[in-house]
Order: sequence, then C-alpha cells, then structure tokens
Amino acid sequence: MLRRGGAKMLTKYGMDLATAEALIDVAQQAAAAMSVPQNIAVVDESGNLVAFRRMDGAKFFASEIAMAKAFTAAGTRRGTHETYPATQPGQPAFGAQALHGGRFTTIAGGLPLMLADGTVVGGIGVSSGTAAQDLEVAQAAVAAFATLVQG
Amino acid sequence: MLRRGGAKMLTKYGMDLATAEALIDVAQQAAAAMSVPQNIAVVDESGNLVAFRRMDGAKFFASEIAMAKAFTAAGTRRGTHETYPATQPGQPAFGAQALHGGRFTTIAGGLPLMLADGTVVGGIGVSSGTAAQDLEVAQAAVAAFATLVQG
Amino acid sequence: MLRRGGAKMLTKYGMDLATAEALIDVAQQAAAAMSVPQNIAVVDESGNLVAFRRMDGAKFFASEIAMAKAFTAAGTRRGTHETYPATQPGQPAFGAQALHGGRFTTIAGGLPLMLADGTVVGGIGVSSGTAAQDLEVAQAAVAAFATLVQG
Amino acid sequence: MLRRGGAKMLTKYGMDLATAEALIDVAQQAAAAMSVPQNIAVVDESGNLVAFRRMDGAKFFASEIAMAKAFTAAGTRRGTHETYPATQPGQPAFGAQALHGGRFTTIAGGLPLMLADGTVVGGIGVSSGTAAQDLEVAQAAVAAFATLVQG
Repeated sequence: MLRRGGAKMLTKYGMDLATAEALIDVAQQAAAAMSVPQNIAVVDESGNLVAFRRMDGAKFFASEIAMAKAFTAAGTRRGTHETYPATQPGQPAFGAQALHGGRFTTIAGGLPLMLADGTVVGGIGVSSGTAAQDLEVAQAAVAAFATLVQG
Repeated sequence: MLRRGGAKMLTKYGMDLATAEALIDVAQQAAAAMSVPQNIAVVDESGNLVAFRRMDGAKFFASEIAMAKAFTAAGTRRGTHETYPATQPGQPAFGAQALHGGRFTTIAGGLPLMLADGTVVGGIGVSSGTAAQDLEVAQAAVAAFATLVQG
Repeated sequence: MLRRGGAKMLTKYGMDLATAEALIDVAQQAAAAMSVPQNIAVVDESGNLVAFRRMDGAKFFASEIAMAKAFTAAGTRRGTHETYPATQPGQPAFGAQALHGGRFTTIAGGLPLMLADGTVVGGIGVSSGTAAQDLEVAQAAVAAFATLVQG
Repeated sequence: MLRRGGAKMLTKYGMDLATAEALIDVAQQAAAAMSVPQNIAVVDESGNLVAFRRMDGAKFFASEIAMAKAFTAAGTRRGTHETYPATQPGQPAFGAQALHGGRFTTIAGGLPLMLADGTVVGGIGVSSGTAAQDLEVAQAAVAAFATLVQG
C-alpha cells in the first residue's frame, strides 16, 4: 500500500509483456511437442488481455475459450479445473458458467500466475486440444513462471 | 395503493441509500471479522443497484457476481441458495442460470431484504469468499435490517 | 517495475476502498448542495468497479451511465468530455460510443483520478443531472483527490 | 479453387502465426520509436484473432479497440479510416458503428493485410495513441507485409 499524502493507493503487481511472451513461448513449445496446435492467452491481475497467439492449425473457435480460461483463472485465483467440482450438479457453484457473459469457464486449461508469496499477477489460458492437453500446456508455462519468479 | 382521481398507482417501498450503506457497513464488518475481503452489493425492489463496495483485496472478478446475487435475490424474492434446488438437473427451473444474460445466479450469498410483512424492498449480494462465507456475510446484513425495520 | 528473480512485473497503483468512499462522500455533498441527487461510481486503474452509490431520487437509469463514465475516464485517461470533440461528425473518433458494448461514453461527468505524476489510478463517473451538473460533481471529487494525493 | 470430385471447395489464404508475430514486431518497434506504447492485434482472413500484444503502459481500454480495428479492416477489406466517410451523417453507411456488437469501428488504425493481387488475408489493428499515431504504426506493419509478400 502506497501513501501519497493522505491517500493510500493499492499497490498491484501485473503481468508485463516480455514475461507474458516468454510464457507463451514455453506454452507454444509444449504444444508443438505434443503436436497439438493451441490458442494461448495471458491476462493481467485485473483480467485484461496482455498477449495472445493462435498457433497455425488451432481451432479459431477456441481463441475466445483460451481468453475465458485466462480471465477466469486470474479472477478466481485458481485453476479453472479446480473450480469445476463446485459447479457440478448438487454442488454450491452450480451454474457459475453462465456468469460474466460466458467468460466464466471451468474447463481445464486456465491457471493463475502467482508470485512466490501467492499474489496473483495474471492468468494463462490454453484451448484447442482436449481439456487434459490444454492443462498440460498451461502447466508448462506456470512451471516456467515459477522458475522466473524464484530465479 | 394510492388513488388520484380514477387512477390507482402502485406504492412501492424501496431501499434508500442510507439504509443500503448501513447494511454494507454491517456486511463489511462481518467480512473483516472473517478476514475475507468481499464485494458487497445492494439493489432496490426493482433490482437496480443502490450501493456497492469492493473491499481491498477482494476479487475483481466477483464484483459482477455480487451484483448478480443481489439482483437475483430481489427478483426471486428469496435467497439465491433457496432457488438453487429447483435448478438442478431434472428439476423444473433447470437452466435458469442462463436467463437475464448471466445475471441469474443460484450461488449462495444473495438474500432478499424484506419488511416485517414480507414485502421485498431490495436484495443484498456478497461474493469473493466461499459460498458459505458469502452467505454468512449476507445473513449478518439481513439480521441488521430486520432490527432496523422492527425498530 | 518489480524484479523477482528473472521476472519483472509491472507495478500498478489502484484505488483503495477508503479513498473511493471518501471521494464519493465529497461528490455526494456537492450533489446535495446542488439539490440534484446523483449516481456516483469509482473504478480502479484497470476499469473495475470499486464503489458505487445511488442517492435517493437519482435516476435508476443513470447508474449504468455513471459506471460507464468512470470506466471510460480510467480507460482513456482523460475526462469523458475531453474525448467528446474527437467523436463528433467529421472528427477522427466518430462512432467511438459504440465500442466496449456501450460502456464507452463521452457525456460529461467522467474524470480520471491521477497521482501528482499523472499516473491514472482510477476514474469517477457521475450521472443523473445535466451533463454540466454531472461534471461539476465529478470535479469536486477530483479536487478532493488532488488534495489527498498532494496532502 | 480446388475440385475434389464434384465438390469445389474455396481455397483461402490466411495469416499464419509467424507472419502475424513478425508484423507485430514491426508495429511494436514503430510504436517504441514514437514512445507510444500500443495494443496491436492481427486477425486472419475470417476476422478471427491470430495474435495480440499489449505493450507495457498501453491503455487496457484500447485492447478491445485494437481488435475491433483489425476485425473491421479484414471484414471491410479496407482501412478503418477509409470506411469512415461513408458513415458520416447524411452518408449511406451512417450508424454502421453500431453493427457487430460494437466491433465495427472507423477510427483510424485498422488496415487490411493483402497479397500482391489484392486478396485480403487478414487485418491489423493498433490502438492506444491518437488516431494518427495508431494509423502510422499500422502502416509500418503493412509496409513490412508488402515486402514479405513480394519478397
């Protein structure tokens, strides 16, 4: 928290472009290694888009889904698949997917990007493969981010 | 019901700002006591927003959800969690969450604000914690409202 | 810019709730002094809502407009009325109001909230009176913010 | 046009990721040379997003506008500023900005990406500076594309 005169402002840490691009590079390599072209999106701590790439051959349809995954992961501060169980029939967050005009998704492939102290500084979303493939690619980027952050 | 000449107009009782702010104060204290920063919204009897606060550290993502909870509670005239069972698979209101452009939610944390005679004069919605935490905070505000109304 | 290991994160300053509420207090007093009840919204540096109040008697319709004004001012980093001329027929930004799903407005009454060095940390939007009245109320809050910041 | 048996399929040429990234590199350098951080978007021949970058310090608000510019340029097959005159009061396309849910923009900074024979294979959109600055950056990318295509 910053004090400037009487005003205290919140201090936030958000995703810079160079880091976002580096994470997408890692994700892209992981996707290429699996021979599954992907849409990859990175948003900042407030859910706004920082960078996006659609690999050649990835589904055009899944670009919005990748962005929704990144948005949801940054907003909920956890993996989209981690929110999934609570949204099942009989569970407390059933129906959550209709919120945020369809940008709230619990399909695997969205992960928060966190500093070592747990502060969420962004989110990554991957979509075009199976949910499991999407998650694996996102995890590769998150692992790389952890190394950068702890480095 | 007021009659002016031949026309009868509806008399509505809606949430005033001072009361809405007082309820948010109570909710905010309850949230602080739980160490869970929250988004808190109060709407009037017509579902329109009267007051809103996002406590420092609450999820930006949950501000719309808090507003959706307040809107749904005022609109359905019951707690969002009370509408929940009817929206489950096989139940009559299944799919209701897709209505109102994603502003219809059955996640716990939205409660109607009622006069002693049951007239709904508004709704409160809380979102950023677990569904149980959100509901607990909303209940604190509703209890305070009951006291205010009974004077 | 923060460096944590190899990752540099952007450092952002955003609106905290206490400051947002203090600014709305000032706006509310200015509106009361003019006998024009208002909707008043404050967003953070990323355009997300921090606090909102609708004064008793203010137009329900204008609550969304107040939020749009705050969003636009934070997003464009200038007063909504300052963007207005460029959106007139024959001017370069004609038609801009259709962007952002109708949340881009150039009606007076939205102002950015800036630190002394010009960093935009939020926006305030006021709507329910005439454009001139709305702007006057927003300006009162901005003046108060400048004092807080320079303190 | 490809014939396979009796069916003739359309052959389309669209933007690949490597080219899109190369164009964004050029745009980013042009923006850096002007000291105006930008949002830069490239879409394919069908209007779908291929790549996007928000440079550090660019307006979060303008990311959607950059995407709208790229979408409009690919869709209209001309610069957004070239469609502008026809949308003025009294002109045949007046009101066009309200189409496509607010993704139709005539603010300068969106340009089609064309093969030497005039085939549109994508669009680029730039937004965060003045309309003139945005256009200049987009033109730098289009010039680079012309060289690549003729190369």
